[in-house]
Amino acid sequence: MSAIKKVVLAYSGGLDTSVILKWLQETYGCEVVTFTADIGQGEELEPARAKAQAAGVRQIYIDDLREEFVRDFVFPMFRANAIYEGEYLLGTSIARPLIAKRLIEIANEVGADAVSHGATGKGNDQVRFELGAYALKPGVRVIAPWREWDLLSREKLLDYAEQHGIAVDRYGRKSPYSMDANLLHISYEGQVLEDPWQEAEEDMWRWTVSPEKAPDVPRYLELGFQRGDIVAIDGQALSPAQVLATLNRIGGEHGIGRLDLVENRYVGMKSRGCYETPGGTIMLKAHRAIESITLDREVAHLKDELMPRYASLIYNGYWWSPERRMLQGMIDASQQYVNGVVRLKLYKGNVIVAGRKSEDTLFDMNIATFEDDAGAYNQADADGFIKLNALRMRIAALKGR
Amino acid sequence: MSAIKKVVLAYSGGLDTSVILKWLQETYGCEVVTFTADIGQGEELEPARAKAQAAGVRQIYIDDLREEFVRDFVFPMFRANAIYEGEYLLGTSIARPLIAKRLIEIANEVGADAVSHGATGKGNDQVRFELGAYALKPGVRVIAPWREWDLLSREKLLDYAEQHGIAVDRYGRKSPYSMDANLLHISYEGQVLEDPWQEAEEDMWRWTVSPEKAPDVPRYLELGFQRGDIVAIDGQALSPAQVLATLNRIGGEHGIGRLDLVENRYVGMKSRGCYETPGGTIMLKAHRAIESITLDREVAHLKDELMPRYASLIYNGYWWSPERRMLQGMIDASQQYVNGVVRLKLYKGNVIVAGRKSEDTLFDMNIATFEDDAGAYNQADADGFIKLNALRMRIAALKGR
Amino acid sequence: MSAIKKVVLAYSGGLDTSVILKWLQETYGCEVVTFTADIGQGEELEPARAKAQAAGVRQIYIDDLREEFVRDFVFPMFRANAIYEGEYLLGTSIARPLIAKRLIEIANEVGADAVSHGATGKGNDQVRFELGAYALKPGVRVIAPWREWDLLSREKLLDYAEQHGIAVDRYGRKSPYSMDANLLHISYEGQVLEDPWQEAEEDMWRWTVSPEKAPDVPRYLELGFQRGDIVAIDGQALSPAQVLATLNRIGGEHGIGRLDLVENRYVGMKSRGCYETPGGTIMLKAHRAIESITLDREVAHLKDELMPRYASLIYNGYWWSPERRMLQGMIDASQQYVNGVVRLKLYKGNVIVAGRKSEDTLFDMNIATFEDDAGAYNQADADGFIKLNALRMRIAALKGR
Amino acid sequence: MSAIKKVVLAYSGGLDTSVILKWLQETYGCEVVTFTADIGQGEELEPARAKAQAAGVRQIYIDDLREEFVRDFVFPMFRANAIYEGEYLLGTSIARPLIAKRLIEIANEVGADAVSHGATGKGNDQVRFELGAYALKPGVRVIAPWREWDLLSREKLLDYAEQHGIAVDRYGRKSPYSMDANLLHISYEGQVLEDPWQEAEEDMWRWTVSPEKAPDVPRYLELGFQRGDIVAIDGQALSPAQVLATLNRIGGEHGIGRLDLVENRYVGMKSRGCYETPGGTIMLKAHRAIESITLDREVAHLKDELMPRYASLIYNGYWWSPERRMLQGMIDASQQYVNGVVRLKLYKGNVIVAGRKSEDTLFDMNIATFEDDAGAYNQADADGFIKLNALRMRIAALKGR
Repeated sequence: MSAIKKVVLAYSGGLDTSVILKWLQETYGCEVVTFTADIGQGEELEPARAKAQAAGVRQIYIDDLREEFVRDFVFPMFRANAIYEGEYLLGTSIARPLIAKRLIEIANEVGADAVSHGATGKGNDQVRFELGAYALKPGVRVIAPWREWDLLSREKLLDYAEQHGIAVDRYGRKSPYSMDANLLHISYEGQVLEDPWQEAEEDMWRWTVSPEKAPDVPRYLELGFQRGDIVAIDGQALSPAQVLATLNRIGGEHGIGRLDLVENRYVGMKSRGCYETPGGTIMLKAHRAIESITLDREVAHLKDELMPRYASLIYNGYWWSPERRMLQGMIDASQQYVNGVVRLKLYKGNVIVAGRKSEDTLFDMNIATFEDDAGAYNQADADGFIKLNALRMRIAALKGR
Repeated sequence: MSAIKKVVLAYSGGLDTSVILKWLQETYGCEVVTFTADIGQGEELEPARAKAQAAGVRQIYIDDLREEFVRDFVFPMFRANAIYEGEYLLGTSIARPLIAKRLIEIANEVGADAVSHGATGKGNDQVRFELGAYALKPGVRVIAPWREWDLLSREKLLDYAEQHGIAVDRYGRKSPYSMDANLLHISYEGQVLEDPWQEAEEDMWRWTVSPEKAPDVPRYLELGFQRGDIVAIDGQALSPAQVLATLNRIGGEHGIGRLDLVENRYVGMKSRGCYETPGGTIMLKAHRAIESITLDREVAHLKDELMPRYASLIYNGYWWSPERRMLQGMIDASQQYVNGVVRLKLYKGNVIVAGRKSEDTLFDMNIATFEDDAGAYNQADADGFIKLNALRMRIAALKGR
Repeated sequence: MSAIKKVVLAYSGGLDTSVILKWLQETYGCEVVTFTADIGQGEELEPARAKAQAAGVRQIYIDDLREEFVRDFVFPMFRANAIYEGEYLLGTSIARPLIAKRLIEIANEVGADAVSHGATGKGNDQVRFELGAYALKPGVRVIAPWREWDLLSREKLLDYAEQHGIAVDRYGRKSPYSMDANLLHISYEGQVLEDPWQEAEEDMWRWTVSPEKAPDVPRYLELGFQRGDIVAIDGQALSPAQVLATLNRIGGEHGIGRLDLVENRYVGMKSRGCYETPGGTIMLKAHRAIESITLDREVAHLKDELMPRYASLIYNGYWWSPERRMLQGMIDASQQYVNGVVRLKLYKGNVIVAGRKSEDTLFDMNIATFEDDAGAYNQADADGFIKLNALRMRIAALKGR
Repeated sequence: MSAIKKVVLAYSGGLDTSVILKWLQETYGCEVVTFTADIGQGEELEPARAKAQAAGVRQIYIDDLREEFVRDFVFPMFRANAIYEGEYLLGTSIARPLIAKRLIEIANEVGADAVSHGATGKGNDQVRFELGAYALKPGVRVIAPWREWDLLSREKLLDYAEQHGIAVDRYGRKSPYSMDANLLHISYEGQVLEDPWQEAEEDMWRWTVSPEKAPDVPRYLELGFQRGDIVAIDGQALSPAQVLATLNRIGGEHGIGRLDLVENRYVGMKSRGCYETPGGTIMLKAHRAIESITLDREVAHLKDELMPRYASLIYNGYWWSPERRMLQGMIDASQQYVNGVVRLKLYKGNVIVAGRKSEDTLFDMNIATFEDDAGAYNQADADGFIKLNALRMRIAALKGR
């Protein structure tokens, strides 16, 4: 295989990717281009620039991708009511395809023949990065240092950093957990969480207060939907990233969106993770509520049946696959009439639907009423409906089954 | 069609079925046998006996079906994590097939040629009763008075009652809502709920306190599972009905299990309903948690993909169908290793998983760890895994797609 | 319910619909508008005009819908490789929604308040007509004489015809079977076919010779595809209806497309039917062949998994439903690259794929070769691929499962 | 990783596995145990014994697995009507899990720490062997020489054989194709087949005559089913392997079961293959026919919807996975009443259903008849059935959709 000349590295400026940056320069003797994205992780990006410069990087990309992230990735996913394994809102999974896309765009711009990332060989993220990279640039080389090097413990990493003069100050606030954050969520893995019987410690959580510490007064909220996406909060039009940031703030204040689960990784093992997804938790509940009055029954059921597969595609890293795009086209088409307003009550961890209305509602008070409906619905129709639906079972029973 | 000689009526002793009892006697000139079941609705049954006797009924069945209800209907359904339309725990739906079964058993015992029920022609319950009845006794006649008579308003019903000397005292505590209750839940429909934008009134709810009024101190709970069913609470072995009753009590105290939704009825319209399912809400969360460490990934995913259909079968009244039984066999088989303990924290409406453990766990700390795993997992394997999973997309990209 | 003023009748000019025409005039005292369509059933339409005029009909619609039928109904359905219950190519099912659509269009044009058809109360066609009619014009009245009148035997029908001076000459060539024909197929039901153990008689079949009587020399055929549809035969561009007519002729000559089956009707019973679908049988085989080289694996698999449901939707009459449209959008999108040529060999009932090629092929000879591929594929990748796919099963086995 | 002491090799006695046998001895310096199975591939096994002895093998396993193969693998698969990608009857796929199981059993018996096979690194078979091996013995080492060595061309292989005194006489009848055979099928890959536009040559096919050369007189056949399996042919009880061998012989004589396709491999590329599956082609057609009269509609539809996934599981090598077993349990349960007789007509490549009967039939002539049914079915029931099924679409249309 030919030598690598230039590699684009997904670079956070933290310890791991700083070591990788140096290691790539040393091991491959190639030029490294760094790419640092703001996807709402809540960290300063300029320190990453300074560090990259200090490491001799000449081409440094720092992009604010927050709007694109929510508009083109988070929102489309929520149109599907996607949940992985009944619980997980896919906060980490959904950010990776955007990073992969931007890595490849930059590789094309700078004429790089390789990309690199800091995901480990045990996790899902390597798969998500690399499936995206290969799908978008089939000839690209991918360097995954965690699968190549022997710096497999924290000590070795710190040793390497020290030997190569790499400053170590990973997070402003020190955490023992392996964390990932973006506008949709923050996640925690490792340490005591590696025992599924151990409850997460209260001081682990960063984005939300506990339900216990949330306000004693509920907060009502009105979310305006257009084609399945939230476009306004309490009547005020907001951009996608503004919507999510606002819901994160309010949800976090009310103790909403904590999750503690054991999930099945694509690479084959079970792992324990804790997640905070305040805005996403609110969005999912509200989206189901607006769909409940605007979506046809069979369309809704078909969406529900396909949802687990759609969620697995995203979880497993197939965002850029033709099958995900095909499903997305169908999901997006289903949202044509998913317009209206949902009223929610937030209270100490609870997201409670307090009302929903829409000019595109399919709810028909005249037909649904318990009172006399003046002939809108002929109750006698139910007789034939039941009889024919029962016919095959009656025949079977008559035959002695 | 031949005349009806004897009919078994699902009889609550309330206004509606008391009128039906009289109406059947008058309209069909036939003997009526009453059947009243205790499925945990929380009402005295002896008044029903007295009323039936007063109406001249000679064969009166009053059965305590609570254990059978939970053991043979609720528990099997929860093994599937069944939720209809992303929200509804199927509390009403799951009780109907048991009533249908018992109606038919009694019809066979007393030599009746017909059964009757008080469900209206607009709802799902008529379908559930009748599909069950036809599946179990294909030649049975079903009399659904609400689809036949002209007593379509409350006034007419009350007039009829007065004219025929039927006492009116439907519920101990007066409610304007159309309600249904059993050990799994209580439901509310009608009145202000007919406008989906109207929030339910606080004094409608009967089984749960509001999260606001729930205790300020969380309650921890340990649920013991065997083959997917809860068999113990805090180490104490309990029967199925005891499990559910206990969880209802505790859940209700902590404001758990309220739900407000718009659902799609099988007969074709959307309807608004409010539900309290305290025990069921806890059971679902706990069951997913114990499955998360004991179930194979692909088994879990297959269950998730089939769940919406399974839930629809129950919602639509197909409990006694061959396809529901076929799915049930598969679901039950999947629960062989779903054993262990789940620790929950209940607090003001929240059900929070605080731990899960099992001797049948598939969670492997050695493989999942972020620390050095001493070779339990070879990170280099991920390279080939990703490359081959990407191959079809790479080929497509090379071909210009 | 208000009186009916004008009704549009799906009118073939045969005995049944001629009786219906008279019966509608007599029973409802309303004006009848007739609609007769050429969908390739192979009958003269002008006799229908004469008969309708003789019956006093003033507004007579006779439309050639063959191109629309194939272009907008048959072709979209074949993009999905739709087969009902593993065998049936849906020849009758797919014509009904077009008739329903045109009935409603005419009803709107002439200001009719009702439509009527000659389908019986036991079959699927009534459902297909009426679901379409209601979906397209929700307030329309539907008159289904077979469900209303008492002319339930052939004798009564003939008596009625005689009494009302209706000429009886149903088919040019007399048949004892209940038949339905359009450009996609001809079907046979009834008579000896009502016993599933009886083999169909050779002289029943009308469109195809038996394989025994087909030529001893095979016929090669090249079918050109664009976006999943056949647009050329042996290099000659043809319209949709021309394609199907040509394939019917050639297929029929070679004994292709006979089918004898027992199917499950939507109304609940099993029924025996025989079908001739020469062109459709060829199209399905060819479409799968062109997809085999142009479609992504996962897209193809997703299509295959959804196909049975899509086929049921069409069989059950839900062409105009939102869920069929949603699936169609996805299926159509999948056909973007389904271009190329398929070479077939037809011989005595066999449709044999002899070759397929495409500029959009995803088949890569360099990778697939059994010879040395010069590094196009790294065999060592398979090791990690297998190991990680096996991981969950290894862990389970280690835990003693 | 520790040294390997003893390896069980799946050994055919052909060139490839003879080279592998020597290569294992040389490369790993370990004892090799050979395992040769008769699964109906139609080759003498004793030559394999002699060759293994000549190579110094001391533990030689030669097993007749034909009955087990058909009874426990082929028959269960056909209960599902399994077809991969609409065409392929999974002839190669279904044999691999049996070989894997027996390899592991022998490894356990002889105390081997490894198994080895001759499948290449590009194909599906390596996956099928190894997933099975890992699932059944999680700690086993697998040696896949084709992924390790550098003997990647035929010339190198022949050179190696010559240098090590390995006799070369691969097949009794010389073939340029890569072939695989067992009781279910024989397959061909490679050579001219690598161009999907090239038609297969007539002299490639070994098990079937061409339809052109098949007898001019059709052959009728009656197949007796019990619980979904064929247990008798023309009234004569036969064992599973006898059934399949008999159907292969008869089918082959009548030119039945040739298939030419492009399939999607699990490892990511498309490949062209030709298959002869005479008995399997007959079995599939017959099984669908007996199911058509004995299976409930919804059970059949659910089976059809799950079939593609079940087929993929087998194709991809997941026979021993918990999800395949779970699906199998459901499929097997569905076959309880799949009993009866199917009458087939075989003629020049065609398998034509000529009749089906069963004491467990659900076909009811009285209900299905076109004649007067004496009230068995009330046609008026269809009215309500249609109206309620249409309701949601009517409401939507009224709302302007």
